[in-house]
Amino acid sequence: MKKKVCTIGGGTGNFVVLSGLRKYKIDLSAIVAMADNGGSSGILRDEQGVLPPGDVRQCVVALSDSSILMRELMNYRFENGGLHGHSFGNLFLSALEKITGSFEQAIEELGDILNIKGKVIPVTTTKTHLEMILDDGKILKGEEEIYLSDKIDKGYKKIFLTPYPQVNKNAVDEIMNADVVVLGPGGLYTSLISSLLVDGVVEALKKTKATKIFVVNLMNRKGQTTGFGASDYLNEIEKYTGKDIFDVILVNSELPDSSLINSYRQEDDLVKNDLQDHHAAVDRKLLGKKAAARAGDIIERNLIRHDMDKLGREIMNIVEQGKNNSPLPNIGEINGRNSICNK
Amino acid sequence: MKKKVCTIGGGTGNFVVLSGLRKYKIDLSAIVAMADNGGSSGILRDEQGVLPPGDVRQCVVALSDSSILMRELMNYRFENGGLHGHSFGNLFLSALEKITGSFEQAIEELGDILNIKGKVIPVTTTKTHLEMILDDGKILKGEEEIYLSDKIDKGYKKIFLTPYPQVNKNAVDEIMNADVVVLGPGGLYTSLISSLLVDGVVEALKKTKATKIFVVNLMNRKGQTTGFGASDYLNEIEKYTGKDIFDVILVNSELPDSSLINSYRQEDDLVKNDLQDHHAAVDRKLLGKKAAARAGDIIERNLIRHDMDKLGREIMNIVEQGKNNSPLPNIGEINGRNSICNK
Repeated sequence: MKKKVCTIGGGTGNFVVLSGLRKYKIDLSAIVAMADNGGSSGILRDEQGVLPPGDVRQCVVALSDSSILMRELMNYRFENGGLHGHSFGNLFLSALEKITGSFEQAIEELGDILNIKGKVIPVTTTKTHLEMILDDGKILKGEEEIYLSDKIDKGYKKIFLTPYPQVNKNAVDEIMNADVVVLGPGGLYTSLISSLLVDGVVEALKKTKATKIFVVNLMNRKGQTTGFGASDYLNEIEKYTGKDIFDVILVNSELPDSSLINSYRQEDDLVKNDLQDHHAAVDRKLLGKKAAARAGDIIERNLIRHDMDKLGREIMNIVEQGKNNSPLPNIGEINGRNSICNK
Repeated sequence: MKKKVCTIGGGTGNFVVLSGLRKYKIDLSAIVAMADNGGSSGILRDEQGVLPPGDVRQCVVALSDSSILMRELMNYRFENGGLHGHSFGNLFLSALEKITGSFEQAIEELGDILNIKGKVIPVTTTKTHLEMILDDGKILKGEEEIYLSDKIDKGYKKIFLTPYPQVNKNAVDEIMNADVVVLGPGGLYTSLISSLLVDGVVEALKKTKATKIFVVNLMNRKGQTTGFGASDYLNEIEKYTGKDIFDVILVNSELPDSSLINSYRQEDDLVKNDLQDHHAAVDRKLLGKKAAARAGDIIERNLIRHDMDKLGREIMNIVEQGKNNSPLPNIGEINGRNSICNK
């Protein structure tokens, strides 16, 4: 029987994981954060009264086996007039949602057209927004405002979804039935914690017998996670999941070109690998090359990001061996300088 | 070998003909008017710099063998915000045109997705507009202004396309290779004459060995064709094609419910059947029932229109027998009160 792998997240990070996993013979499902209110998704929420389609679209494209043209089409953004900034795939999902009255059916229809491998499941179908109360009392309303804030690293009191959303039962089922669950990489507050805040998700993560993997981000975001090491990401996530929930914490051990680092915003910085002593930490060379792997991908070029193939292979090592075995070293790295740190 | 049938026109009239013909085993192609500048198509022309997709979309939906949902999706119109009034299928064609750089490739891709039977061919891919100079000197600029004018029946001096468009060679080929060509029904100036004005179309109509059918409209449009009989339509068309180009002129002989007539604008009136003495005239009961035939159709309900099945069957009678034979009477009408007037 095929192993079941379930990812949790949203945005580009989720796109990379799914793209890395789609070539393997596994049952793949993507549980997607649903609080986006920026850009095209935000406008569609406001004007058409639909659920935010952007993160779902990215997952559908990642899992698609259709032509390059169809994947390009889904990510095509209109540049002018009233359509400005809308990606075509978002319009596709929203029109289908309006006709069928069901976002999940819309995803299914688009998935059929794009011949996707796997399932894409919104973590909730409640129309909900992410809010955050900072230590200074300021309330950040909506995922976009949180994403754009550079005051979060000064401390926040509370992050929550409003109205309080009902979990999608299909998402809980996927987590419960999975052999491996992968959280991250992705926006710490906007994709990861946003998903964990949906009631029932953490409970399912605690109950499931699946091997749980946390993939730590590569870069910190200025004013949000400035100076964070891998341990800070883990601590932040564990505030919501409870301690020691992950069987494997995948941390990158590779240094990018300094030219790449310079292309980031001045105060964005690399995530330090400070989890060497953690029992679940596994450090691997996971850095991506400059060019995106497939036409139609939405990943911006020239940024520091996970290599989808390396990340997919690492996760598959764990899928094949279960949580009680050390992940195998990658061929070619056995005699190399990369330490195997599954302690 | 399958017979080749080619339609020329645009809008709802063309939709009805194609819907009536698509169930037959023929090679079907639709040559589509390309001067639309109103509504969603007009906005897309202005803002995105694309060709007008609306008429092509209707043809693609008419020829589609895909699910009701997919056809509904293509005709779905967004109701609010910056997307207001855009039909999703128009956005589909425009996004594909932007990505591929080719409107014809866009049609092909959409046709594949919608599993269409037949071909949809823009009469030109030049970005052109329809203009009309009225007898009083006023210039109507663009198809929409012409469509909305109620002064045309006072007389016009000239109707022309600007810039002067290049004919699509594929359209000429279809006409030349057809066994039967069908012009109309449809907007006299905006769909039919608009297509005939493209240089090369009339020449092909004159040269082709195809049987040429003109399907006369059912209703006159206030201020445009007020009081027109079938002979007036024919005369107007023959200004552009030359005399006696049609082998068959299909005229409706059925009277609609008066309640239906009343639902039209006050001065819209029924087209009189005054072609009884014309050698090519064939009058038939061609009136549609109230309900539209298939979900996802764009035809408004409760209007006086051709019945797609009756019209399709009449055209197929001609396809099967060629121009030198009288169309067969419809079964059930042989002993009925409907006269067979193929003189």
